[in-house]
Amino acid sequence: MAATEFQLIDHFFAGIGDSSSVLLGIGDDAAALELPAGHVLLVSTDTVSEGVHFPRGTHAVDVAYRAVIAAASDLAAMSAEPLGMLLALTLARTDSEWLAGFATGLREAAAITQLPLVGGDTTQGALTVSITVLGSAPRATYLTRQSAQPGDRLCVSGTLGDAAAGLSIRLGETVADDQSALFLTDRFTRPSARLALGQLLRGHATSAIDISDGLLADAGHLARCSGVALEVDSAALPLSEAMQTIADEAQQLNWALGGGDDYELLFTLPADATLPSGCTEIGRVRSGSGVFCDVMPEQTGYEHFVR
Amino acid sequence: MAATEFQLIDHFFAGIGDSSSVLLGIGDDAAALELPAGHVLLVSTDTVSEGVHFPRGTHAVDVAYRAVIAAASDLAAMSAEPLGMLLALTLARTDSEWLAGFATGLREAAAITQLPLVGGDTTQGALTVSITVLGSAPRATYLTRQSAQPGDRLCVSGTLGDAAAGLSIRLGETVADDQSALFLTDRFTRPSARLALGQLLRGHATSAIDISDGLLADAGHLARCSGVALEVDSAALPLSEAMQTIADEAQQLNWALGGGDDYELLFTLPADATLPSGCTEIGRVRSGSGVFCDVMPEQTGYEHFVR
Repeated sequence: MAATEFQLIDHFFAGIGDSSSVLLGIGDDAAALELPAGHVLLVSTDTVSEGVHFPRGTHAVDVAYRAVIAAASDLAAMSAEPLGMLLALTLARTDSEWLAGFATGLREAAAITQLPLVGGDTTQGALTVSITVLGSAPRATYLTRQSAQPGDRLCVSGTLGDAAAGLSIRLGETVADDQSALFLTDRFTRPSARLALGQLLRGHATSAIDISDGLLADAGHLARCSGVALEVDSAALPLSEAMQTIADEAQQLNWALGGGDDYELLFTLPADATLPSGCTEIGRVRSGSGVFCDVMPEQTGYEHFVR
Repeated sequence: MAATEFQLIDHFFAGIGDSSSVLLGIGDDAAALELPAGHVLLVSTDTVSEGVHFPRGTHAVDVAYRAVIAAASDLAAMSAEPLGMLLALTLARTDSEWLAGFATGLREAAAITQLPLVGGDTTQGALTVSITVLGSAPRATYLTRQSAQPGDRLCVSGTLGDAAAGLSIRLGETVADDQSALFLTDRFTRPSARLALGQLLRGHATSAIDISDGLLADAGHLARCSGVALEVDSAALPLSEAMQTIADEAQQLNWALGGGDDYELLFTLPADATLPSGCTEIGRVRSGSGVFCDVMPEQTGYEHFVR
C-alpha cells in the first residue's frame, strides 16, 4: 500500500472515542494510558477474518462493530473497566466507502464500550481484523475462570442462541417472520459486551467467562480452569421469544447450547448471592470435572462461521 | 482451522517469557499485569506481512524475531520498561516445523526484550504477524516525539542503513564478502530494540522516535510532532565498516538516509546533556519545519520490502 493510502486510513481512524485515561493517543511511537490507582491492567487480543468469523460480503460497519464487541466481551468477563483498544487491520485494497463504513462501526462500538482507539496498524491481505482491548480492575477482586466452587450456582446473562439463529437467517438456512428476523439478525450483527454486568459481579461472582464459542464449549473452559464439574439444566436455559417462534425445540437447544457469538457472560455465584437482574440460574457447580447436560446438541465445539 | 490445530498452536506458544509483572498469563479471557506504582501504560501495535515487510520464504525464526523487535522498538522510543506482548497470527496452514521455528524466534525475542507472551489469537490466511507490546514508564518523564526544542542536538544510536544493506544482499542485489554479508544480513534478521538506551534517555532527551521507516522519514515525523525543523549532516552519519566496504558513497548514503528497519533511536538532547556511549550527534534542531540534509537519497519514504 502506498503512503498516501495509509494517510487515507489515518484520516478515517483519527479521533475514534475519547477518555480522560488516554494521556497520549495515536500519532506517537506508542499510546500512553493511565490506570486508576490500585488497578491491574487487563488485556486481550481477538481476531476475526472474513469467511471464518463472518460471511463474505458482511457490511463493513458490522465487521468493525462485532470485532470490537467480541474483544470487549473478554474484558467484561474479567470485570474490567474499559481503557482503550488497538486495531491491526489487514485488507485487500483501500476502498473509501468500505473504510468509511468500517470507521463508523468502530466509532459506534468505541462509544458504547467506552474504548477509545489508541493505536493501530494496517497491512495488505485478506480481510482480517485484530482488536486488542485494554481495561483495568482492582488487583484483589478482578474475575477469572479459575475460582468456581462446588455448591455455587451457574448463571448466565441475557438469552442464548440468538446470534446463531440470526446468522442462520442471514445465510438463508432458516425462514423467519420479519419481526423475529430483525431481532435475531441484530443480535448477530450488534451484540453487546456485558461490561457493566462484569463490573457489578466483581466481589460477588466466583468465576466468569464470556460465551463466544457456545455455552457448552465455554462451560468446558470454565470447568477445566476451576477444576470443577458443571451441570446445565436444559429446561432452565433463557431463550428469546423470537428464537422460540422460528424453530422447533431441538433446533432451539442446538443454538442455545452450541451456538457461539452471543457474548453473554457465564458466571458462578455462591448459593447466598443475589442474582443480578437480566440473569438466569441454569445449573450448578459440582466437584469433579467436565460439563453435564440432560441433552446434547448436534454441534458442540462451535467453530464460528467456517462454511 | 480445526480445534485440534489450535491446540497444536497453543502447545507451541505456551510459556514464552516470564515476568513477575504477569499476574495471569495465557488461558483466561484476558491477561492481568501489574504496573509499577506511578507508571503509565505504554502500548503499541505493529504488523508485518510476508512479501511486504519481509521476503517470501523468510525463515520462521526470523519472521517472529523481527516482528517482536519491530514492536519493542516503539516501546524503546517511549523510554518504556517492558511488561508483555500479545500476538495475532494469521497463517495459511499449520505446519509443525514452521510453528516450532516461529515459537523459537518468539522465545528468543521475548527473552532479550523481557516481553513475555501474555495473549494471542490465530486465524487462517496469508502470513501476517501483529504484535502488541505493553510497557510502562513514570507518568512525568516518559519520552515522546513532541518536545524537541530549537538548539537541541539531533542524535542517533548505532549505525544506519545496515538492515537495508543486509536485505539487499539477501535479495541478491548487492555482492558482499562473507564477513560483511554475515554482519549486515544479521543486522536485518536480528535487529535490536534499544530498550536500555530508551530508559537511559528518560529525563535527559527532549524527544525520541525509533527508525523503522528510514532516518529522513522518521526525522520528518519527529519534526512534525515537535513543530520544529531538523538539520542532518550527511558527513556525521554513523556507518558500519561492513556497509562502507561493500558500497560506493552514494549507495551508503541512500541506505543510511532512506533505508528502514534499523530500529535505532533518533533523539534530541539539550546542548549541555552528555551523549550516551554508542550514540552519535548527526545534526541539530532549529525553529521552523521540515527536515534538511546536504544530500538527498534516491529513496526517501521507505516502503519496507514491497517488491
